[in-house]
Amino acid sequence: MKKLVAEFIGTLWLVLGGCGSAVLAAAFPELGIGFAGVALAFGLTVVTMAYAIGHISGCHLNPAVSVGLWIGGRFDQKDLLPYIIAQVLGAIAGAGILYLIVSGKSGFEIGGFAANGYGEHSPGGYNMLSALITEVVMTFMFLIIILGATHPKAPKGFAGLAIGLGLVLIHLISIPVTNTSVNPARSTSQALFVGDWAISQLWLFWLAPLVGAALAGLVYKFLSPNDA
Amino acid sequence: MKKLVAEFIGTLWLVLGGCGSAVLAAAFPELGIGFAGVALAFGLTVVTMAYAIGHISGCHLNPAVSVGLWIGGRFDQKDLLPYIIAQVLGAIAGAGILYLIVSGKSGFEIGGFAANGYGEHSPGGYNMLSALITEVVMTFMFLIIILGATHPKAPKGFAGLAIGLGLVLIHLISIPVTNTSVNPARSTSQALFVGDWAISQLWLFWLAPLVGAALAGLVYKFLSPNDA
Amino acid sequence: MKKLVAEFIGTLWLVLGGCGSAVLAAAFPELGIGFAGVALAFGLTVVTMAYAIGHISGCHLNPAVSVGLWIGGRFDQKDLLPYIIAQVLGAIAGAGILYLIVSGKSGFEIGGFAANGYGEHSPGGYNMLSALITEVVMTFMFLIIILGATHPKAPKGFAGLAIGLGLVLIHLISIPVTNTSVNPARSTSQALFVGDWAISQLWLFWLAPLVGAALAGLVYKFLSPNDA
Amino acid sequence: MKKLVAEFIGTLWLVLGGCGSAVLAAAFPELGIGFAGVALAFGLTVVTMAYAIGHISGCHLNPAVSVGLWIGGRFDQKDLLPYIIAQVLGAIAGAGILYLIVSGKSGFEIGGFAANGYGEHSPGGYNMLSALITEVVMTFMFLIIILGATHPKAPKGFAGLAIGLGLVLIHLISIPVTNTSVNPARSTSQALFVGDWAISQLWLFWLAPLVGAALAGLVYKFLSPNDA
Repeated sequence: MKKLVAEFIGTLWLVLGGCGSAVLAAAFPELGIGFAGVALAFGLTVVTMAYAIGHISGCHLNPAVSVGLWIGGRFDQKDLLPYIIAQVLGAIAGAGILYLIVSGKSGFEIGGFAANGYGEHSPGGYNMLSALITEVVMTFMFLIIILGATHPKAPKGFAGLAIGLGLVLIHLISIPVTNTSVNPARSTSQALFVGDWAISQLWLFWLAPLVGAALAGLVYKFLSPNDA
Repeated sequence: MKKLVAEFIGTLWLVLGGCGSAVLAAAFPELGIGFAGVALAFGLTVVTMAYAIGHISGCHLNPAVSVGLWIGGRFDQKDLLPYIIAQVLGAIAGAGILYLIVSGKSGFEIGGFAANGYGEHSPGGYNMLSALITEVVMTFMFLIIILGATHPKAPKGFAGLAIGLGLVLIHLISIPVTNTSVNPARSTSQALFVGDWAISQLWLFWLAPLVGAALAGLVYKFLSPNDA
Repeated sequence: MKKLVAEFIGTLWLVLGGCGSAVLAAAFPELGIGFAGVALAFGLTVVTMAYAIGHISGCHLNPAVSVGLWIGGRFDQKDLLPYIIAQVLGAIAGAGILYLIVSGKSGFEIGGFAANGYGEHSPGGYNMLSALITEVVMTFMFLIIILGATHPKAPKGFAGLAIGLGLVLIHLISIPVTNTSVNPARSTSQALFVGDWAISQLWLFWLAPLVGAALAGLVYKFLSPNDA
Repeated sequence: MKKLVAEFIGTLWLVLGGCGSAVLAAAFPELGIGFAGVALAFGLTVVTMAYAIGHISGCHLNPAVSVGLWIGGRFDQKDLLPYIIAQVLGAIAGAGILYLIVSGKSGFEIGGFAANGYGEHSPGGYNMLSALITEVVMTFMFLIIILGATHPKAPKGFAGLAIGLGLVLIHLISIPVTNTSVNPARSTSQALFVGDWAISQLWLFWLAPLVGAALAGLVYKFLSPNDA
């Protein structure tokens, strides 16, 4: 139960921090943080939670991470569904708090919130195939980083930094393509508030991250030196 | 006594570094550091002091942190008031040095300095309720990070990085809402130089951070695995 | 074989992450990440792979690094050629994935991709001699950082951070001069897609990094305290 | 002798990296790294050298650091002068390489290079008193960070990060005031190439850093818990 509360709070923080920085601060006139600031914010939600709750729940904060760790033999199947439910609920709670905050600005309209999209809803106008490749490959590499950095032979204590900075990097590359998901819980939380097109494109942001994560679980099993 | 001098110097540095970067460098024409640079500066004051004086005073630098650690059972009540006084005095000293520096520019006017505010004094025009929610939630999460990263089961040595980067993140999200406080000493130091509206809005930047911090102290007690 | 697959994946990630952020995100209107974001992306590919696959292959991801470590007495000559081949193939694969993604944007033209160049193909218009000096010196310092940070007397576990942040720094300095190579595999991967001038300038981005790396191998042998 | 070569190379890197990023990349049209990128570059020269040569020479790279450590009882007086000479020569060599690189751009004029200044040569037009206070206080805090983070009771291995990130922070605050020195070797190297006003203002960038560093050495002796 502590684990599920930790995943709930952690995923809430990922959405409030990452999507929050995008909605509140990215395009602020003159002084805005831009895509680079948003990338940093997403990654730092993971860095901070890795050290704060990693020793409680493992700090997945993402259904694709839980699935990749399960396929890679690092996570118990019986915990898989409860973790995913806690993550999705936490993400929705984070989006709700963000909605409360932004609605306190006069003239507020939700627009795209920080939803993920492709085609005409891709920030840079990339098509569905580009989005699919991007989300599969980015999630694949995210899980390679996670599986590698938490391997017993990797330097102790640094996994939280490596994984969080990996999420910074993934956002630096791919925000223009899909607004970057690699996390179905994060995508779902935004789509619920935006509705409409964001709901109808949501399938890609479950499918692609889960496929990429599962592939990484299989590949890392081959790569890893005498996996523990 | 060494502890109080360390808290004084550390909080001086937090204000001089964080508010200083905001006042001196954020809006510099063409080359300014923007909100992202200010966020980084605030966080790095904590990273640097955590490693420099963490082994002397614990490096709180913030009345809300001291209160949250006390509620969470990690800080002795008898040190609470002296710490808060040292922090507030250090913050005022930092603001004083900053004032001396900026007044050496011809045509200088204090304007809003780096004071926190809501409503018409929110950088992005967010109302009081948005500011209240933001400051409570941000301080809550800041204390969850602090309590978690300094837990005996967390990786050794990384707490200073995780906590400082947490403060970077909090600023990346919330500068547009309140100019980001989560620290009553920091807010007080700026309000004293700005006077007027900054003084009359100061209550929120004591109340919200202290409430958020106290809640986190309670929640983390439940979350933590056999707290030491 | 595991080592070569690891080098392949790692160098793929270096090119997809570093060159990808440059092509996709650097010049995005209003919110683009600029040279600083690209510098961060290149460095974080190394930080993430260092912790993910460092314990498998040593995480060179760069023919110049393999040569510098060999000259410095840290890498076995028999692995040199296989490593370089795996790196070049991985880099080309990364460039291929990037090409697939960017070609899903209507109106896409490859332009300079993220190729390295000098003279009229230097981002800032620097001549061949400037480019040569820059690439030799930057690769020399990159290898000094690598050889020093992985020395047995250096703090354990931090090498991945120091080396990756070193690559951030090298890009912060030298993108305007050559678009920054210090890595012949990275340069080759882009030149193959750009053809033309990028192929005819490619010699410099093999010669200069290899010379700089070899010099560093020799100098560090003199510097190092009782090298292991 | 190895120590002096290490200090020479390290200070060369500090100037080539920090001043180089300022001269080459800060104001690049559209994509330039700005003051924040320059701040990061300066700090990363120290992070990278701390892990690369810290175990050889201690990685001072700065006469003020050597003086502060000597006053603080952490550095042997007999090494003081040789270290300072190696640092100044290394800084000049770094400035020379930078000069070679930038002179390979057609239409190049040296202008202010990356020299430090006050009054009409302060980037933001701050007067001499502001500059003096800024340089004394920034160097004071830099040495507090160095003395604290390298104290035996501080977490092992993190000093290089804390100190380098401290230099990032110092630049985020004070580039607008003096272009940030806190390092007489860095200032001297630029003044020699600029001549004129940069030479006549150079006294401040020796005096203020040395005073700030010496004060910190004295204060930290009082603060430190049973100094080793």
